[in-house]
Amino acid sequence: MRTIKLTLEYDGTAYAGFQRQPNGVTIQEKVEEALRSLLGDPDFKIGGAAGRTDAGVHALGQVIHFRTAVTIPIDRWPYALNQRLPADIQAVAAELVPDEFHARYWAERKRYVYTFYHAPFPSPLHRLYAYHWGRELDLDRMREAAALIEGQHDFAAFRSSGGAAKTSVRTVYRLDLAQEGPIIRMGIEADGFLYNMVRIIAGTLLEVGAGRRPLADVAEALRTGDRTKAGKTLPPHGLCLERVWYGSGPKRPSWLPEGETGLDDE
Amino acid sequence: MRTIKLTLEYDGTAYAGFQRQPNGVTIQEKVEEALRSLLGDPDFKIGGAAGRTDAGVHALGQVIHFRTAVTIPIDRWPYALNQRLPADIQAVAAELVPDEFHARYWAERKRYVYTFYHAPFPSPLHRLYAYHWGRELDLDRMREAAALIEGQHDFAAFRSSGGAAKTSVRTVYRLDLAQEGPIIRMGIEADGFLYNMVRIIAGTLLEVGAGRRPLADVAEALRTGDRTKAGKTLPPHGLCLERVWYGSGPKRPSWLPEGETGLDDE
Repeated sequence: MRTIKLTLEYDGTAYAGFQRQPNGVTIQEKVEEALRSLLGDPDFKIGGAAGRTDAGVHALGQVIHFRTAVTIPIDRWPYALNQRLPADIQAVAAELVPDEFHARYWAERKRYVYTFYHAPFPSPLHRLYAYHWGRELDLDRMREAAALIEGQHDFAAFRSSGGAAKTSVRTVYRLDLAQEGPIIRMGIEADGFLYNMVRIIAGTLLEVGAGRRPLADVAEALRTGDRTKAGKTLPPHGLCLERVWYGSGPKRPSWLPEGETGLDDE
Repeated sequence: MRTIKLTLEYDGTAYAGFQRQPNGVTIQEKVEEALRSLLGDPDFKIGGAAGRTDAGVHALGQVIHFRTAVTIPIDRWPYALNQRLPADIQAVAAELVPDEFHARYWAERKRYVYTFYHAPFPSPLHRLYAYHWGRELDLDRMREAAALIEGQHDFAAFRSSGGAAKTSVRTVYRLDLAQEGPIIRMGIEADGFLYNMVRIIAGTLLEVGAGRRPLADVAEALRTGDRTKAGKTLPPHGLCLERVWYGSGPKRPSWLPEGETGLDDE
């Protein structure tokens, strides 16, 4: 048996999120269908995925793993699978990893990008991948808010109900804003994310940049955990799981209480 | 009566091209429907469009014009129209122009961009807007071919049958290649384009860059008009009408024979 780490890119527009669920077609279903056909095993299941991306969220670098006895050369796996995958989900890299590897538990850092389209009118060519904002936006003020969010904090104010994680302390390693014409990309890297955390942080920076929320709210949201001091949850289509970094074993942050997995839902 | 010049952005994926035709829904139909509803005139027609983009071709800066007695303030036109347009077609600018203005006859220069996605595997996030190429590609060789194509030539070898233009002499003002990671953009500016000219030039540069066609073929195609010395017509989804420049009256190139309009089909 070999354990294979597979990197996936997908356009989440047509899907009800990554994880299998009763309503709507999911990315996981499509990937497992392709693997079942390729491996000739009607019961095949993947072992895990780095991020549970929500309905409508995209990925450039989602990571999954699975175990198999089938011995396709490792660099041929993406070609073999892509023939069986729809055009909006494709494998872009494959790697042999140690048997104990787990795409979720071994993830040390993940990078999400939230994309804004900042122009007077909405853009047909960006409408599926960027959130349109037609009014004032002060990028310097957004960067001030971003600087407050970087670091280790209790992000209780930046989560939606429905997440499984018990602890809401996370470390945001970086929160950067890059502008290229009308496109503004908010990149965020952390050791883990709470449910809707990136979309709420994006909404908070937007409201600060639009002059609709004082910078002091951000500090207070971090200090008190008061959800009303953070911004609205922005829609999923602006969000993309860009990259996942792995260590050489399961991640277990020092701040995590005994008996908790510290797992996240995005 | 006022004459209005309107700039449109659209995602051509779902449409049978710009121009009204019996089979399939076109951009023009959708725009005229929106204008009919806005103006309360069930027979309203636009006056013309800068480029007749083909089925599946996109636009960042298509230009149309129309005449109306309705006196909406000029900067409100895009807002009023966009409410009545689908999300994949939007107005992005409006301008009052002289009564004699014609979006097609007054166009002096147009810029199209053909986008390649150059990486081992196809990209779900670029699949609708870029042509995937997974093999070798020598950008320097492509630039050498581009340099041959710039200038005034008879582009008879770079057209598909079905175009209306009688003269195939055109001036390519520039043909540039820009790379940004896996994205390669071929930008081409000319005084006019023959039917499929950009997609054939893109196919020619691709074949030269892939080492499948000698540079000498390009020179010969330009010299002899031999279609077999130029490359294949690449698919429409990589193509986008980016910008149109206007002069202060109808364009009439000096090389155009008497009695010919010199109009183009893309």
